Amino acid sequence: MKNEKFDVEILDTTLRDGVQGVGITFSVRDKIAVAETLDELGVAWIEAGNPGSNPKDLEFFRLASSFKLKNSKLCAFGSTRKKGIKACDDVQLRSLLDAGTEGVTIFGKSWDLHVKEILQVQPEENLLMISETTAFLKSEGRIVIYDAEHFFDGWIANPSYALSTIKAALEAGADRIVLCDTNGGLFPDAIVRAVQEVTKTFPNAVVGIHAHNDCGLALANTIAAVQSGCTHVQGTLAGFGERCGNTALGALIPSLELKLSLRCLPQGNLVRIGELTRTVAEIANVIISDDMPYIGLHAFSHKAGMHVDGIIKNSRSFEHVNPALIGNDRHLLMSEVGGRAAIVERVKKIEPSVTKDNPVIISLAEKLKNLEAEGWAYEGADASFEILTRREFGRYTPHFSIEAYRVMSEHPTGEKILCSYAWVKVLVDEKTEVAAAEGVGPVGALDEALRRALTSFFPGLAKVRLEDYKVRVIDGKEATAARVRVLVESTDGHRKWNTVGVSADIIEASRAAIVDSIEYMLISEAEKGRMKID
Amino acid sequence: MKNEKFDVEILDTTLRDGVQGVGITFSVRDKIAVAETLDELGVAWIEAGNPGSNPKDLEFFRLASSFKLKNSKLCAFGSTRKKGIKACDDVQLRSLLDAGTEGVTIFGKSWDLHVKEILQVQPEENLLMISETTAFLKSEGRIVIYDAEHFFDGWIANPSYALSTIKAALEAGADRIVLCDTNGGLFPDAIVRAVQEVTKTFPNAVVGIHAHNDCGLALANTIAAVQSGCTHVQGTLAGFGERCGNTALGALIPSLELKLSLRCLPQGNLVRIGELTRTVAEIANVIISDDMPYIGLHAFSHKAGMHVDGIIKNSRSFEHVNPALIGNDRHLLMSEVGGRAAIVERVKKIEPSVTKDNPVIISLAEKLKNLEAEGWAYEGADASFEILTRREFGRYTPHFSIEAYRVMSEHPTGEKILCSYAWVKVLVDEKTEVAAAEGVGPVGALDEALRRALTSFFPGLAKVRLEDYKVRVIDGKEATAARVRVLVESTDGHRKWNTVGVSADIIEASRAAIVDSIEYMLISEAEKGRMKID
Repeated sequence: MKNEKFDVEILDTTLRDGVQGVGITFSVRDKIAVAETLDELGVAWIEAGNPGSNPKDLEFFRLASSFKLKNSKLCAFGSTRKKGIKACDDVQLRSLLDAGTEGVTIFGKSWDLHVKEILQVQPEENLLMISETTAFLKSEGRIVIYDAEHFFDGWIANPSYALSTIKAALEAGADRIVLCDTNGGLFPDAIVRAVQEVTKTFPNAVVGIHAHNDCGLALANTIAAVQSGCTHVQGTLAGFGERCGNTALGALIPSLELKLSLRCLPQGNLVRIGELTRTVAEIANVIISDDMPYIGLHAFSHKAGMHVDGIIKNSRSFEHVNPALIGNDRHLLMSEVGGRAAIVERVKKIEPSVTKDNPVIISLAEKLKNLEAEGWAYEGADASFEILTRREFGRYTPHFSIEAYRVMSEHPTGEKILCSYAWVKVLVDEKTEVAAAEGVGPVGALDEALRRALTSFFPGLAKVRLEDYKVRVIDGKEATAARVRVLVESTDGHRKWNTVGVSADIIEASRAAIVDSIEYMLISEAEKGRMKID
Repeated sequence: MKNEKFDVEILDTTLRDGVQGVGITFSVRDKIAVAETLDELGVAWIEAGNPGSNPKDLEFFRLASSFKLKNSKLCAFGSTRKKGIKACDDVQLRSLLDAGTEGVTIFGKSWDLHVKEILQVQPEENLLMISETTAFLKSEGRIVIYDAEHFFDGWIANPSYALSTIKAALEAGADRIVLCDTNGGLFPDAIVRAVQEVTKTFPNAVVGIHAHNDCGLALANTIAAVQSGCTHVQGTLAGFGERCGNTALGALIPSLELKLSLRCLPQGNLVRIGELTRTVAEIANVIISDDMPYIGLHAFSHKAGMHVDGIIKNSRSFEHVNPALIGNDRHLLMSEVGGRAAIVERVKKIEPSVTKDNPVIISLAEKLKNLEAEGWAYEGADASFEILTRREFGRYTPHFSIEAYRVMSEHPTGEKILCSYAWVKVLVDEKTEVAAAEGVGPVGALDEALRRALTSFFPGLAKVRLEDYKVRVIDGKEATAARVRVLVESTDGHRKWNTVGVSADIIEASRAAIVDSIEYMLISEAEKGRMKID
């Protein structure tokens, strides 16, 4: 039965096909965070892992009963039964049931090449594997999503056999038939022909599409399939997946909702798709591409003079949709003039009357260019940018300075003790204070020592803690002498703010980001009510 | 007249539309290097800049006479004449001629919205601007490539006016009519309808396509246009361009040549497309995405166990084309979703007779899953994987051990001196050695001290150095106590190898990766000839 809430039912497989992408791994805690993010967006299905092949996935499903999803349903992923045994005796199918999810995705073979050479079974046995597995899972009360692996390649090689595999799944009660371009090698014209044949042959089936991006056509193939009758779409929010990735739902859903008027998400949620795609990417420690359609940082950045000119006259002239609809912003990059316009927008928070021709703005623009050339990046570090701005406007007096610090790490072999120690001397209003602390690593020790030294002067600091810590090597080619950029997210329990530090020394880069974080909090306390922290 | 050498004539506009991408800038020297790279690949046309708007481009064209292109022709880019003046009096058109190129690209308006609101001229005046500009450039002996800006949006809004702009260009002698999806907002179905109407209306015209990637459909739209009759394609090799970029030719050309059998490049050049796309990206100081179709590092990387298993049985089972055709390689990755088949393939290098059921393989697979759960990742660390394997097979005796180390970093404020010191004590064959070193950061100091301590035992180490150093925070939510994964690339001047270390302490994680790197080099020296390093 077709999904009642949505025109197109979205299944996100970040937690299953996504982790087949190179470099994508999630801890169990990460997996829960991803699932909660996807639920927040409101995709219909979250395919959350393969409990039969992976202990982490098993653990995830064990924990899944303890957190409540408000929008999405979970499904576990596995394959049809092994050859030569009964479905009810298949350990892997048992683990799918043990996952306790409402839905179960199983994949089966549609391509005779795979049946013969990979599975190494007779074509009829493969059909039995499909139908018996489906029937068994249905008898256990599951919603069965049948992934017809390599369907398109199979349909081209041997159309009647490929269709007979679909028939086997449908007759055994499969609720969804998902046609997969597993190798990602097909063009939209082939996708359209195959989907049309399937929907004509099985007019009552709910048909889905699962595309891969090996030709850069995953989005196009998915759209073509939807235009040809598919109402179930599989992909991953940020496009993670085997080889070149899966259909990037973060770029697909805006096209389906805005251009084809097909509802895919609960009303009002489209505007959060960029933010939530970034959240998933961040959990994977990946940065989504700035030129990602619709939601990338540059998706509405206009650089050419004539484009900027056109946009100012009529935004439709160079924008295919209104960026606000997907929670994105327009950026006018009028070279250095554009740079200043953007800076003015930001500075207005602390200096409401400032204009583009203010000499401080001009020097700030210059300074920013130089800092960015050295590897500083303020896009993700609003608090550091604000401190920089205040300094330029003479509206910043540091609350403290670090007179000196030392950090020592030692590693006596043979024991499991790793330890770092830090000593810090701070100066506040001509008074000094010294403190020491230990930590697992050198940065943790320094952070702790600094807080101890400062808390006697600023008791409010006690409630501040670092919430996130990121390191990026800026120029890897210099190896251990490369510059690193450290981004720190801090919180006082209510608000969050982000700061940045850059140095060839990771401890010094961390020190800069931590000092900015503490200063920002102190400025904020001093000016309570005047400031807004995003 | 249609291009005689190619089925589809490629125009690369990296040097023009490409630099409208955020963050893309080229010096004049860079521009020459890009042009030489494109010529090496053999694209028909290189659109090299806008001499009327940019002094750097003017300088490029001045120098262009001094270097010889063997395959490609240059063209300069500009717009139709200004309103209210004669073409021959237009300074911008004069500068296009001064560029001295064989071809000239001019863009004109096809969308009535733009004519009225952006150009602010009467529709008839716009037609005159198009025809007079074309006629003038033809009278000066140029090949004229007419870019119909916003053609598709214009054709949807007012089809007869859009077609009349094409007619104006063709009747004035334009050699190419290029239909542009300037805003990148259209889907292949609209592209197909419009191209079909143009090719039907003007059967003798050579029609081209210029797509943007705002919906992630630039490749699909370009392929659809070619399938509908376009024989000229514009794009940028690495996909650089305004907003979300232009059609990425590096991903397009393999599809056209391998899947549609349309010649786009001189015979034999397709195999170099990955290498040359990387060269262009490197000149721009951009790294092409690892998941770029066909040519990305991960385009043929197989991670899921069942995929690896299939690839070993028959590469067609999970590969849409042979990676060798575009100069790419297959990679079978070690990972938790990998499985024993991949492990066996890799282990065969050191244990040729091993099979999937070998108990060591089974325990190694188990161990790998647990290590990955702790944050280790061997996908990018072949050398560490080999050491792990050797250890499991009892074929590894460490050449040295670190008895103890200490690292100290200090920062006296007020001076620009940042310094870290390391002391290391190593044990080799029951002899110990102690060494110290300083460095910009703690890891550099430790690395140097370790090398010093070991070089007296292993002189070959003197030529080994770290070439790349990457840090990833695995679970950012733990802030500075989070686990980090360090990846190190080492070289002895000839070969490269990669190792990994994981710890909550960045120094300890780095230590592990550096120790593996040195051990790998020592094993390699000891077994010279027996081992292959990828």
